[in-house]
Amino acid sequence: MLTQELADKIATFPLDAIPEQVLHEAKRSFLNWLGVAVGASHHPSMDMALNVAASLGSASQASILGRGVKTDLLFATLLNGMSSHIFDYDDTFLDTILHPSAPVFPALLAWAEHQGVAGRPFLQAFVLGVEVEQRIAQAIYPSHYDRGWHITGSVGAFGAAAGLCRLMGLSPQHAANALGIAATQPTGLREMFGTMTKPFHPGKAAANGLLAALLAREGFTSSASALEANRGFLAVVCENPDPAPVAAPWGEKWQLVNNTYKPYACGVVTHPAIDAGVRLHRAGITDAMVESIVLEVHPLVLELTGKKEPRTQLEAKFSVYHCTAVGIIDGAATEWQFAAEKVLDARVIGLRRKITAVVNRQLAENQAVLKATLKTGETRTEVVDACLGSRGNPLSDRDLEEKFLNLTRPLLDDAAQREIIERVWGLDREANLSRITGLCQPERR
Amino acid sequence: MLTQELADKIATFPLDAIPEQVLHEAKRSFLNWLGVAVGASHHPSMDMALNVAASLGSASQASILGRGVKTDLLFATLLNGMSSHIFDYDDTFLDTILHPSAPVFPALLAWAEHQGVAGRPFLQAFVLGVEVEQRIAQAIYPSHYDRGWHITGSVGAFGAAAGLCRLMGLSPQHAANALGIAATQPTGLREMFGTMTKPFHPGKAAANGLLAALLAREGFTSSASALEANRGFLAVVCENPDPAPVAAPWGEKWQLVNNTYKPYACGVVTHPAIDAGVRLHRAGITDAMVESIVLEVHPLVLELTGKKEPRTQLEAKFSVYHCTAVGIIDGAATEWQFAAEKVLDARVIGLRRKITAVVNRQLAENQAVLKATLKTGETRTEVVDACLGSRGNPLSDRDLEEKFLNLTRPLLDDAAQREIIERVWGLDREANLSRITGLCQPERR
Repeated sequence: MLTQELADKIATFPLDAIPEQVLHEAKRSFLNWLGVAVGASHHPSMDMALNVAASLGSASQASILGRGVKTDLLFATLLNGMSSHIFDYDDTFLDTILHPSAPVFPALLAWAEHQGVAGRPFLQAFVLGVEVEQRIAQAIYPSHYDRGWHITGSVGAFGAAAGLCRLMGLSPQHAANALGIAATQPTGLREMFGTMTKPFHPGKAAANGLLAALLAREGFTSSASALEANRGFLAVVCENPDPAPVAAPWGEKWQLVNNTYKPYACGVVTHPAIDAGVRLHRAGITDAMVESIVLEVHPLVLELTGKKEPRTQLEAKFSVYHCTAVGIIDGAATEWQFAAEKVLDARVIGLRRKITAVVNRQLAENQAVLKATLKTGETRTEVVDACLGSRGNPLSDRDLEEKFLNLTRPLLDDAAQREIIERVWGLDREANLSRITGLCQPERR
Repeated sequence: MLTQELADKIATFPLDAIPEQVLHEAKRSFLNWLGVAVGASHHPSMDMALNVAASLGSASQASILGRGVKTDLLFATLLNGMSSHIFDYDDTFLDTILHPSAPVFPALLAWAEHQGVAGRPFLQAFVLGVEVEQRIAQAIYPSHYDRGWHITGSVGAFGAAAGLCRLMGLSPQHAANALGIAATQPTGLREMFGTMTKPFHPGKAAANGLLAALLAREGFTSSASALEANRGFLAVVCENPDPAPVAAPWGEKWQLVNNTYKPYACGVVTHPAIDAGVRLHRAGITDAMVESIVLEVHPLVLELTGKKEPRTQLEAKFSVYHCTAVGIIDGAATEWQFAAEKVLDARVIGLRRKITAVVNRQLAENQAVLKATLKTGETRTEVVDACLGSRGNPLSDRDLEEKFLNLTRPLLDDAAQREIIERVWGLDREANLSRITGLCQPERR
């Protein structure tokens, strides 16, 4: 009954019972997602996938964000899902490592733009979609992830299908079929990390979820016990699934309120050190003033990001030395602080070499201590207790605006950026999502 | 190195080293596959999927067999893959339960029709594709299947991608990327059996393989150790993978020569009993002449197909009583012997009730003994030793022609049927696959 009960909720849960606070979190997720999707939209892998769409004669139905072109709904979903995960800068549920937005928003947005859906049902469908995918993720984490599945790809299709079923107004029976068709298409091996195929996962999950909903809408049949059957999804993809999170009552607490957003475009373990660097920057301390730095970090930091002399963009993201240095020099660690020229910049290299990182086992994962000795002989200590973006210190709405502005600056003009931000905060009153997709196009410049 | 070595073979194996006997088996597979694909092309699930393609504005690139319409390459691949598995009447490797053609031919045929590929490279690419998917299937069977994966869906994408890489002339490096992109998209839970989602599996596998090849062709990157890595495909989808079949030398023996074809449109366990029934039919014995029948069968037969009074098409396929009765009355058990009117036909019901089936533990799975008592008092015994279609008694080329004719008779006229058969046997000299796809259209009637 697990699958059917979930399908009932998807089809019939009273949308007005979703609190405004939760809808606001959906807007925050959307602004964050739009920024990362537009920001990475000109990555070479996007050109490649667009070439494939063109070779298939893909129809002009929905926008590729940041590109000024449209493809059919399936490719728009695939491509926007890819671009939003390319920078590894999208949102995260820390308890499952699920990136909730990348597989759900692309499918909902393509459909909404094509069908002229209004903002409020769009946000509500997103809340339902995230609720479904995160519950399923909780049922199979960590065994599923440990086995080698990229959980964002492997459960993302459920979220996309669930949200679309509601937007399409499908019956509980059709919604159950959609969940079944989604269940049979898990996508994403962790082995692909470090290649273009990693961001392909949420895109493909979103596209699979869209296909599932479109087929279910036509009456296509599937198992009504796709999740819980002896050889159903839960049993096939992990050792000891716990169906309790999927079966829990609806409406008491919403998964989405636990969403977190990265302030920095790199692995979360480096974020406390970057915070400390940004504090120095804001205190007016420049790299030229620094004699040496000792950085105390959680053991995982050196295990995962101990690269002293990074030479590529990806290596720099796995170097706490680089991360801290750009925090001090630029007061930021957006995608641009990891660009090739920045990684090879003499000032950054010089400052990286002044940093010594040591393990302090007293520190939690979201903590760090930075001790700087200045050339004047003066010392300065920054103690980071709960780094920005962690649950105890979430990004403010203004922080999210700043992140969006940084990510989209190379592609969108100021007026478009400001109008998008304004329309996202007023999304529950927006008549038609196509206004926002129209603004996310570079040719306005 | 396993993935890269496989990619090297895909890209560089000398095609002229494939023996003519193997190419002939590819032709047999193709004729069998065309018949089942055309035969089921008007199933309601096909209408549903075509509606989805139309709603996405799918371009007119490749034919849906039996339908007289074209869609883009992805949907043509998905749809022809679906239709060829709807009747559960396609080919099988008995050692892995892999149905090799359904995920490979659709992708190759869509590409070949669109690009004007000739018959010989098409057949050679099919041989390579089947070689790859069956080797991978052997590496993970039976643990993978036991866990709940529908192996035809979960490894099919490798076969489609491999064949296409060769047809497209991709480099070993690009072929390795294609295998990686295929690896990350396993499709198909056995839980879906009995629903429209089952035949969706080979179709989606084929489409995923096509997408993998198209992306790889553009330079899209993936893991070069997708199969063998610690968290690669083999380790993620089964308990104790055995990489030896994948690593075995090429060119000594070809997987395709072990392909088998079903003479009857139902589960293989009933086939010996049907053989016995068909022998009675050919001996001129009618249902009216029969007083009673005792059927001795392998234990699995009653376990899997013991339904005495079937009422639907699907139930009839799981009734050895129905199967044997139509064998006697019609001398056949094609898809039409399981149509609703046949299941409820008074003569068939009468004869079903005269049959008693008993287990004989001396019999192998491809054996049966039928003892008929006629109204004259005369008795007649048929001992089936190696049923038609099993490895010891393969379908002849003429049997395959007959099967094709039966399956396509409602849709294609005699001249088209005959020309298709002739062109398949001469496929190594065919200049362009589009001639055959053009013949597989109903509007010729």
